[in-house]
Amino acid sequence: MQARLLARLRDDGPLSKAQLADRLQVSRTTVAAEVGRLVELGLAQEAGPAASRGGRRSTMVDLAGDIRFVGIVIGATGLSVGVTDGRLAVLATRHLACDIRQGPEVVLGAALAAVREVLDELGVDHPMGAGIAVPGPVDFHRGVPVAPPIMPGWDGYPVRDAVSRTLGCPVLLDNDVNVLAIGEQHAGVARSVRDFLFVKIGTGIGCGIVIDGELYRGVDGCAGDIGHIRVDDFGPACACGNTGCLEAFSGGAALARDATAVARGGRSPFLADLLEENGALTAADVGLAVQRGDAQAVQLIRESGRRVGQVLATLVSFLNPGMIVIGGGVTGVGHALLAEIRGVTYGRSLPLATGSLPIVLSELGDEGGVVGAARLISGSVYAPLASRRD
Amino acid sequence: MQARLLARLRDDGPLSKAQLADRLQVSRTTVAAEVGRLVELGLAQEAGPAASRGGRRSTMVDLAGDIRFVGIVIGATGLSVGVTDGRLAVLATRHLACDIRQGPEVVLGAALAAVREVLDELGVDHPMGAGIAVPGPVDFHRGVPVAPPIMPGWDGYPVRDAVSRTLGCPVLLDNDVNVLAIGEQHAGVARSVRDFLFVKIGTGIGCGIVIDGELYRGVDGCAGDIGHIRVDDFGPACACGNTGCLEAFSGGAALARDATAVARGGRSPFLADLLEENGALTAADVGLAVQRGDAQAVQLIRESGRRVGQVLATLVSFLNPGMIVIGGGVTGVGHALLAEIRGVTYGRSLPLATGSLPIVLSELGDEGGVVGAARLISGSVYAPLASRRD
Repeated sequence: MQARLLARLRDDGPLSKAQLADRLQVSRTTVAAEVGRLVELGLAQEAGPAASRGGRRSTMVDLAGDIRFVGIVIGATGLSVGVTDGRLAVLATRHLACDIRQGPEVVLGAALAAVREVLDELGVDHPMGAGIAVPGPVDFHRGVPVAPPIMPGWDGYPVRDAVSRTLGCPVLLDNDVNVLAIGEQHAGVARSVRDFLFVKIGTGIGCGIVIDGELYRGVDGCAGDIGHIRVDDFGPACACGNTGCLEAFSGGAALARDATAVARGGRSPFLADLLEENGALTAADVGLAVQRGDAQAVQLIRESGRRVGQVLATLVSFLNPGMIVIGGGVTGVGHALLAEIRGVTYGRSLPLATGSLPIVLSELGDEGGVVGAARLISGSVYAPLASRRD
Repeated sequence: MQARLLARLRDDGPLSKAQLADRLQVSRTTVAAEVGRLVELGLAQEAGPAASRGGRRSTMVDLAGDIRFVGIVIGATGLSVGVTDGRLAVLATRHLACDIRQGPEVVLGAALAAVREVLDELGVDHPMGAGIAVPGPVDFHRGVPVAPPIMPGWDGYPVRDAVSRTLGCPVLLDNDVNVLAIGEQHAGVARSVRDFLFVKIGTGIGCGIVIDGELYRGVDGCAGDIGHIRVDDFGPACACGNTGCLEAFSGGAALARDATAVARGGRSPFLADLLEENGALTAADVGLAVQRGDAQAVQLIRESGRRVGQVLATLVSFLNPGMIVIGGGVTGVGHALLAEIRGVTYGRSLPLATGSLPIVLSELGDEGGVVGAARLISGSVYAPLASRRD
């Protein structure tokens, strides 16, 4: 009851007690009692009389104005931190360059210093909770990274507990894809969608699964790890040690590798120039080349999108989701990639499952992750164990 | 509340009011009030004092002894009907040969006559509800088959409403794969598993998805339609009009087709003899040949299992389920198929997702579908709209 009431206020904004009773399908008496308790707990506040609906005026209820959540999103080469209010509106953010390979002490130290700065700037002493995302597999229940391939030194490090100790508030740790999916659900294109997939195509590839409004983690917490689905028995070697993984064909690192081969092979003067200039190519360089109309770069993007579409077609036939949101660094190459993904996914899935299936690019920037991380912890703060009974 | 209380009694058996309060995490007062109401409604009964736990004795509560549900499972060439009590124990069943291509009037007529016989035999006047399954896509909310490929004459036929009129009780219609999955959940190997896939390999191939204890139908109701996932760009033609579908490689019809080619090509004397004898071969004939150690038949099963495993590996990496149950007619070929499916699925999925993933054969026979159909409607009967508030 408490959790559902607070989630309504978080997601729908201030509501009158009468509206809360309607939306939660309980009596006004129950709402009044529950609101009283939440005001005492410092989680909610009464906010004046509601507009008249005829009869006695109801009272408006809002989340307490001083609730603050922290969101921390750690990436391979940079990190974002932010502070939100109880409704997850972002009040301030910081973005820093930071190499994750420096290990947890250094990276978390930098993140927490940035959080402290933002909190001080906002005059916040005690945030109510913090969510933190890392770019690798996580044991959600233990709050530690598990054998993360691109995070040397982080395996088993007690990230959740270390951050919780420093900030003095409850903390939850999840992988970046799940947190981005939660962000889309709260503030992005998937806002009104109960069942959707968020596909991140960055250096690696992963998928967040939202089913009936809830993130689905699978029985071992590794649901959505689609980057290592084998799409070809005879594909390139993957960072995971296998061959033919989707990520080894279509991830940002794969795109950079293939672009380098194209440049060296003399098939794209534009990419060759960039390679000579910078010493290495990135997925973003392929995006630049595509904007210049470079035929080889367009071909690379098409091939990448085709493989992603092939996997998504299978997932669509299997799960029949209501939307697919594409995000992550490689979306810098944007519409060329999206067009190919759409073509293959629609062409290969069942007509019934794709009849009304939007496949769209994420419109959230760095803030999407911060909001997702804040929402992750807000769900837990708003639903303390003692009230799980409803 | 009502729904959760009745579902506890259905799945756990008679419980004392004290146990109900514990399991539902509500007060004993609430349980007592709710039980009183359910007794009045004829859904529950008090069943004497509970064993003492020290202090005042609690009262045992059970489902009303006269609750009866009907389960009807229509297949391509036969149908099963059965009647269960409130806890879904099967009291009697009938199985008839019946060609689904005779159309809904004939087939439903035969099914309902059989139901009436069983009800009369058991002395049941008014069943509380009936579940019915058909081997094709269904619009669950409208209760009609939708363009079912092997069911000429059934498209859009109001199956649910027709059966409801005849039996005078609420009815739900679903596809056979979903109903079999629900049966596994209630009475099969997946009984204690909250997240699993039920894969039916019969004439066609389909998948029931159970997530957090609930069947997942997808946003258009077509989740689990894995038979038409394209596993090869250059595969055989499928009944659906596309090429390279999983079903066109590995379904029972595909197996029969390939066995016929093997027999005609003179590569299996055993299959050639069967073909000459019967004029046609079936998937069951391949099973016979495998039992005889026929190398070509073993090869066919391996190839079939390999393709199924290839798709399952993708689904396992994606959804990280807790169990996969294999059922349907082709499981007559049993352990050879299972071994191949296991080998490919375990070999190609992520180690974390398969570390503790059982892939097992269904142990339920025809009764599995009857129990599943009865459970489908029981959920709806036990949760009338009026009580959806909790």
